[in-house]
Amino acid sequence: MINFGNIFFILVRPQLGENIGASARVIKNFRFKNLRIIKPRDIWPNKKAISTSVGAKDLVHNSKIYQDVNSAVKDLHIVFGTTSRMRSINKTNLNLRDAIKIIIKNLKRNKKIGLLFGSEASGLSNEDLVNTNYLINIPTNISFSSINLSHAIAIIAYELFSSLDRKILNIKNFYPSSIASKKELNNFLDFLIKRLEMIGFLKPKEKKKIMIQNIKNTFQKSALSSQEIRTLLGIVSSLIKYKGNLH
Amino acid sequence: MINFGNIFFILVRPQLGENIGASARVIKNFRFKNLRIIKPRDIWPNKKAISTSVGAKDLVHNSKIYQDVNSAVKDLHIVFGTTSRMRSINKTNLNLRDAIKIIIKNLKRNKKIGLLFGSEASGLSNEDLVNTNYLINIPTNISFSSINLSHAIAIIAYELFSSLDRKILNIKNFYPSSIASKKELNNFLDFLIKRLEMIGFLKPKEKKKIMIQNIKNTFQKSALSSQEIRTLLGIVSSLIKYKGNLH
Repeated sequence: MINFGNIFFILVRPQLGENIGASARVIKNFRFKNLRIIKPRDIWPNKKAISTSVGAKDLVHNSKIYQDVNSAVKDLHIVFGTTSRMRSINKTNLNLRDAIKIIIKNLKRNKKIGLLFGSEASGLSNEDLVNTNYLINIPTNISFSSINLSHAIAIIAYELFSSLDRKILNIKNFYPSSIASKKELNNFLDFLIKRLEMIGFLKPKEKKKIMIQNIKNTFQKSALSSQEIRTLLGIVSSLIKYKGNLH
Repeated sequence: MINFGNIFFILVRPQLGENIGASARVIKNFRFKNLRIIKPRDIWPNKKAISTSVGAKDLVHNSKIYQDVNSAVKDLHIVFGTTSRMRSINKTNLNLRDAIKIIIKNLKRNKKIGLLFGSEASGLSNEDLVNTNYLINIPTNISFSSINLSHAIAIIAYELFSSLDRKILNIKNFYPSSIASKKELNNFLDFLIKRLEMIGFLKPKEKKKIMIQNIKNTFQKSALSSQEIRTLLGIVSSLIKYKGNLH
């Protein structure tokens, strides 16, 4: 239903090849495919972009170059500008999660979405924003809001990816499957407590009950595996069997 | 209530100064303060780290160097390992949002939280993970999950920041305050339609009603400002007044 190929990441006058390569890499990390570049400063493609893209060389080589925003967005339906500061321009500033709702709604209608990212030095100009329907606001530290180009892309790509892929949305926390049954744990605890009693640890007598309870709680709350319990059993046995002088 | 200074970003054997600098920058972008580094590969501090940190040189200079995970986490209470793949290790893998709930709960109790990030080449080893309470799983493209170190930090720092700062949590979408009243808009539409009627545009007669409705809808749905409406009025007036030949 959702086509990741309908999202277009568009870099506007990027300067550093490293940032373009890093951007390509993180775009691919989150399953997106399309990189468009408007007037890169250096010759294109360049070595630094290719080396920092690591396994996303395909995106660098398949990226399309444009001379202006108009031509880079002409086949798209909804275009977002991205910014880390509130712009006093007559556009709606959306927070990221609300922007993503609009993106998903339009992807479901098979519309093509453009995401504009400004240059390292100066961001997006008001002229760049003429074609945008909305601005996406990435909230940052108000006293240090200058965010790296590929970091802005990483954050938006991650949020989009985790909202788009229903499998990912529904990811359950994973708890170790090897967690031991309560029976295994309690066998160990009984073994331990019996030994502690034998060695005279559970004293004075009036505190015995609460000491046992505390010891049990200590182990009950951590989801121990069968292997870990066997190891603990081994430790307790070995400690008891040891007859030498530990000092 | 929440102290951003209780979050510690810990890089385990990072290799590239650029990545350490970029990490410092994005940590500061999201108002965090603490960077710890375990066995950086190159001499420390190094020029590349300082230059890529841009305005976060203070974090680079204040970062603390450790020789192993044990000593880097000894004053912390809850430690998370980060990974982009499910690890077959006996630890609970949490998705990012659930991990953040646990982090917030512990920050409210004034506990110190460590976040471990592995080296570029090999991530976190099972030995590195011994001290961790949980793993945080960053879901990625299963066929290209190798995410840049500073990108992993950017994503986690952003998510934490947007959950921690209640002002940010409550950020409202910003709509242009200069949006015109319906009265202003309707004055313009009446003016326009009257002119269209005068120039014989609204024909044939039986379609007039629906044509007017469509024209009104066209302008009603975009939240025009007073200034934009004045401009549109000017355009319509000028077009009508123009008596020359446009061809």
